[in-house]
Amino acid sequence: MVRQLRLHLLVLSVALLALLRPAVAGEVGIVEKKVFELPSYTTVGGRTIAPVRVGWESYGTLNAAKDNAILITHFFSGTSHAAGKYAESDPAPGYWNAIIGPGKAIDTDRFFVLSSDTLVNLNVHDPKVVTTGPATPNPATGKPWGPDFPVVTIRDFVNVQKALVESLGIRKLHAVIGASMGALQALEWASAYPDMVGRVVPVIGAGEVDPFLIGWLDAWATPIRLDPNWNGGDYYGKTPPTAGLAAALKLVTLHARWYEWADKAFGRAWAEEGKDPAAALGHRFKIEATLDAVGQARAKAADANHFLWLVKANQLFVAGGSLAEGLKRIEAPVLLIPSKDDLIFLPGRVERTAELIRADGTPVEIAWLDGVDGHLDGITAMSQVADRLKAFLER
Amino acid sequence: MVRQLRLHLLVLSVALLALLRPAVAGEVGIVEKKVFELPSYTTVGGRTIAPVRVGWESYGTLNAAKDNAILITHFFSGTSHAAGKYAESDPAPGYWNAIIGPGKAIDTDRFFVLSSDTLVNLNVHDPKVVTTGPATPNPATGKPWGPDFPVVTIRDFVNVQKALVESLGIRKLHAVIGASMGALQALEWASAYPDMVGRVVPVIGAGEVDPFLIGWLDAWATPIRLDPNWNGGDYYGKTPPTAGLAAALKLVTLHARWYEWADKAFGRAWAEEGKDPAAALGHRFKIEATLDAVGQARAKAADANHFLWLVKANQLFVAGGSLAEGLKRIEAPVLLIPSKDDLIFLPGRVERTAELIRADGTPVEIAWLDGVDGHLDGITAMSQVADRLKAFLER
Repeated sequence: MVRQLRLHLLVLSVALLALLRPAVAGEVGIVEKKVFELPSYTTVGGRTIAPVRVGWESYGTLNAAKDNAILITHFFSGTSHAAGKYAESDPAPGYWNAIIGPGKAIDTDRFFVLSSDTLVNLNVHDPKVVTTGPATPNPATGKPWGPDFPVVTIRDFVNVQKALVESLGIRKLHAVIGASMGALQALEWASAYPDMVGRVVPVIGAGEVDPFLIGWLDAWATPIRLDPNWNGGDYYGKTPPTAGLAAALKLVTLHARWYEWADKAFGRAWAEEGKDPAAALGHRFKIEATLDAVGQARAKAADANHFLWLVKANQLFVAGGSLAEGLKRIEAPVLLIPSKDDLIFLPGRVERTAELIRADGTPVEIAWLDGVDGHLDGITAMSQVADRLKAFLER
Repeated sequence: MVRQLRLHLLVLSVALLALLRPAVAGEVGIVEKKVFELPSYTTVGGRTIAPVRVGWESYGTLNAAKDNAILITHFFSGTSHAAGKYAESDPAPGYWNAIIGPGKAIDTDRFFVLSSDTLVNLNVHDPKVVTTGPATPNPATGKPWGPDFPVVTIRDFVNVQKALVESLGIRKLHAVIGASMGALQALEWASAYPDMVGRVVPVIGAGEVDPFLIGWLDAWATPIRLDPNWNGGDYYGKTPPTAGLAAALKLVTLHARWYEWADKAFGRAWAEEGKDPAAALGHRFKIEATLDAVGQARAKAADANHFLWLVKANQLFVAGGSLAEGLKRIEAPVLLIPSKDDLIFLPGRVERTAELIRADGTPVEIAWLDGVDGHLDGITAMSQVADRLKAFLER
């Protein structure tokens, strides 16, 4: 009897403690991939792609006024899967799950958050990705587009998103938020369609892909072109250039990181026990073997031509087509979230972007990330700026 | 007659003006490549290379006391040709000609400056380079060493230089000065043989090749391993892996630069007139085409295996074998000359090197370079620190 009372008291105490805990942010839970289709789309360059299909997903509820929508634009090797899981058994949620959800920085209790796959999305072989690019069938021929697929630009990505947003009856986005290539899309949205964007949050990105980064993107792509299986982009139905693609993705993986990451994750550990890297050319350090394995794993979901088309879209990017003018056209308040250790969008270039947007009085804030992951802080260290992002969005 | 007088006056004026000019630093003039040979050398790893031959050159005169010698150690893709010309018709002098010569920062009126090719020097096909590595004949077999060549380390480079220096009767070097991989050699000299080094000047280098840079060096090497002609390093007498080597050298070239260089040298210029990069996947920017051409040009003088052996030597580098202990063993005053825009030896790593050398009271100065070339400021912007370097050497 006493024992039973004690148990009752314990249960009661736990219940009371739960009530006294501060409100804990929730999860968006299970999300569903949807498909948006345009029967025909004409690129900025004047070529027609028919149809265009892209995947998208959403978290939270669109209000009656349809004025609470936030668009998330994804990074080079990313997909629209920004938060939640497709099934409880998924090993991990979407990439920005730490900042998207009920009560989180991007609060799905307030906002309707939508996220779409871009044109020429890299991860064609991810069953949850829906995109249109060289690897997808061209109904006009019944075969994959291959090298005939038109060059597409960041503006084309934005234009397809605009059609998606308008199809939902949304006339103005509360905000556009994206990391890396997603930051380029966010800036392009705000420059091209200033009346449709209420706030802009470019994370680990800048107002242009500058000449140096044009060179780097070409360096990323080089192993694909070196792979004899690439064959000028004509490899569908044949052996794809997987070795070249894996080497390209390995370089991207490394370039997006920083030395503190390498120190912590690897140090000078050897790839194989008993095989001292000093003893033979073929004995390697763990960081080398791991980067190879990561490149190979990422290549399984990816397509080499889509990689090259993404490189081209990025190389062509200058916000609004002309840096100073394009950034001047932005009217929405801007919160830039760069990483101080970014080797891709270098800090000086982000500062220059801020100056140019500010030039005509548009308010710009900068919230620097300081994690161990370099460029990738924009994915892994976002909790550092969660409060500031939340305040910016709810102001 | 009047005309002739005028001519005389003109000649006289020019002569007087020449006398009134401030003293201008001179040139080292024509230099000669010499060869140093060791009948046999045993590596740190216990393997024997017989013989070892390396090229070297010198500027200035060794004094009777043999205490005015400065050793210059070269960078990854460099050679011993640090100053002067081999013939008047050479298109350019050695890489540090701006700071080596009579009256210059490294004053050949005072110092005997010597510079040697390393083991496994990259530029095997440069007729002025003398080195020993996988591409050079192994007298034991009458064929190039190929993949049987032993792993060599920065300490091995230093040990061969030590034998050269001792062969000249030099017991202590006034200073060891080197850029990039040359900085690693300079630090290794000062840590391994503290009694033999009077001053150390590591330019654009740090106390170790850290895990992140181990990964980058592997990324540089990746295109060579991807090239089917590499064939595990067994390609002598067959088609060499030139495409892979050119891609590797392209990546090195880019990694060693900075965005201001790309802005100035290329901007968004197209590779070919009339071929807008936005119009077709194959239309490129000038920076892309130029980097390809530079990689191909550099590959002509280079050997792919030597590149891989150099990568290994660099990856294994930790000053004195253990960072804190190795740097502590340095007793000579140190002048570090890093670039603030260095993407290879990142500023934080140079600062850490300075802290560790200073830990036991060894004096360390830092003279930051601030040019447009990133890592390569250590070659192109050295005149910024010439006075400071001169004062450090003459103190």
